[in-house]
Amino acid sequence: MNVIEVADPADDRLADYVRLRDSSLRRSLEAEHGLFLAEGEKVVRRALRAGYRPRSLLLTRRRRTVLDDVAAEFSAPVYVVDDAVAESLVGFHLHRGVLASFHRRPLPGVAEVVADARRVVVLEDIVDHTNVGAIFRSAAGLGVDAVVLAPRCADPLYRRAVKVSMGAVFTLPYARLDNWYNGLEDLRRRGFTLLALTPAPDAVPLAEAVDGDGRYALLLGTEGDGLSSRWIAQADVRARIPMAARDVDSLNVTAAAAIACYELTR
Amino acid sequence: MNVIEVADPADDRLADYVRLRDSSLRRSLEAEHGLFLAEGEKVVRRALRAGYRPRSLLLTRRRRTVLDDVAAEFSAPVYVVDDAVAESLVGFHLHRGVLASFHRRPLPGVAEVVADARRVVVLEDIVDHTNVGAIFRSAAGLGVDAVVLAPRCADPLYRRAVKVSMGAVFTLPYARLDNWYNGLEDLRRRGFTLLALTPAPDAVPLAEAVDGDGRYALLLGTEGDGLSSRWIAQADVRARIPMAARDVDSLNVTAAAAIACYELTR
Ligand SMILES: C[S@@+](CC[C@H](N)C(=O)[O-])C[C@H]1O[C@@H](n2cnc3c(N)ncnc32)[C@H](O)[C@@H]1O
Ligand SMILES: C[S@@+](CC[C@H](N)C(=O)[O-])C[C@H]1O[C@@H](n2cnc3c(N)ncnc32)[C@H](O)[C@@H]1O
Repeated sequence: MNVIEVADPADDRLADYVRLRDSSLRRSLEAEHGLFLAEGEKVVRRALRAGYRPRSLLLTRRRRTVLDDVAAEFSAPVYVVDDAVAESLVGFHLHRGVLASFHRRPLPGVAEVVADARRVVVLEDIVDHTNVGAIFRSAAGLGVDAVVLAPRCADPLYRRAVKVSMGAVFTLPYARLDNWYNGLEDLRRRGFTLLALTPAPDAVPLAEAVDGDGRYALLLGTEGDGLSSRWIAQADVRARIPMAARDVDSLNVTAAAAIACYELTR
Repeated sequence: MNVIEVADPADDRLADYVRLRDSSLRRSLEAEHGLFLAEGEKVVRRALRAGYRPRSLLLTRRRRTVLDDVAAEFSAPVYVVDDAVAESLVGFHLHRGVLASFHRRPLPGVAEVVADARRVVVLEDIVDHTNVGAIFRSAAGLGVDAVVLAPRCADPLYRRAVKVSMGAVFTLPYARLDNWYNGLEDLRRRGFTLLALTPAPDAVPLAEAVDGDGRYALLLGTEGDGLSSRWIAQADVRARIPMAARDVDSLNVTAAAAIACYELTR
């Protein structure tokens, strides 16, 4: 075990953990180094169990021993810092006291990820990392087999997404379409029925649109505008979760995802 | 219409809008003055439609006319400020450019709120305002009739909850139990079947626990620990949303709420 006490928040060895709330800085830093961060003991353990290789761990003094059992198995350094050093490094009070930086892995292709899948969630341009993480948690928890992301959908390995997913982004296989315009054709060719989830009153009630058997792909749209007309046109069925007349236009995309995954996997 | 340009962020007339991210300050300020805030044109309109009485509006110059049609109908002042004044007042860039402060109303009692209700959601000590707001949005959207809150559940009229609910906190009636220990007895006496939602593997699958008819109360537990053993013991049935074996222990409370409301109201 390679435990190193660090006293200076500007120490280069801590550079993976700098300014966690500065999202544009983080995006370029993480892309450049091919890293992602996991937060909290439970989520870090899940990343390790899923086979991700750590670059380093960052523990506050109070939590310095909580990962000893697993840290014994890798050579990456374990940095131990004071609360104040952690806070000035990451930009807020690190109350869980456990962070880890991991190497990303090359994403598998769509073909590989859906090969044996029966139920797939497809996300078109979800903007909010919290929503991406929440959808992974529900999809994994309810037994969806894989997730496919549109080219511009937010990154599931961004810190907020990892955290909100409780690590489901590590266990649920996912891939990214490299082509938005024709990306769905490939899924249809593989025998998936494409369900476009939409609150539109003239869509088919979800429960009538699925019948247990077969391969289904659930298409979910972006927070503001919903699915693009291109994707709606490419779908086999437009399916809606019936809404009450109560001055509410639509469900939050995470609520719609949870209900649709439930309906599809029951 | 009472439009007033204000140039000084420290002007007392803007005091309702000060430091929106300072949650302890906001809590005491809002309690003391019996006010709550709504953000964004759509949500402010919903509050007005629901009959809430404005104390004032705060608009940035760019958005100064967007509420003219409704502002004509009330005497509360409409403060117009520069972007920079708004930002230094509230503590972040007010990109929607529309805030309003409203008078709270006395909450109705539980008896009144559930009198004609068939389907009720009961929240025990949900901590996160985002979760409270999201549950209101789903419950209202899916046709639940009322919400009952445990004494310590987070406030639905807190700004984050209002925002995430998209204003559903204004249209879905809710009340607060004044007694946590025996609070559920009253619901049972009124003929509600109490369903304790829990991921416990030995609970009854949700779909088997509900049969369309009858009055149901869905009990949802706090983010970390779930329902208290007291409330679980008081429930008629423990109901679970079946989970896949994928290293996910439970659903997020908002996902569980969405699925349970869907199952109950379909
Ligand atoms: C907030 S909604 C977008 C609302 C947008 N105005 C629309 O009409 O699609 C985000 C996504 O959630 C899903 N969604 C929301 N409410 C739904 C409902 N009642 N039925 C089916 N899908 C829904 C859809 O996939 C939608 O693209
Ligand atoms: C994050 S969970 C709490 C988990 C907690 N460890 C437990 O065992 O209840 C928060 C709430 O969501 C609801 N919930 C989460 N997953 C559920 C599931 N699979 N079935 C039913 N309710 C669930 C329950 O009401 C729970 O109290």
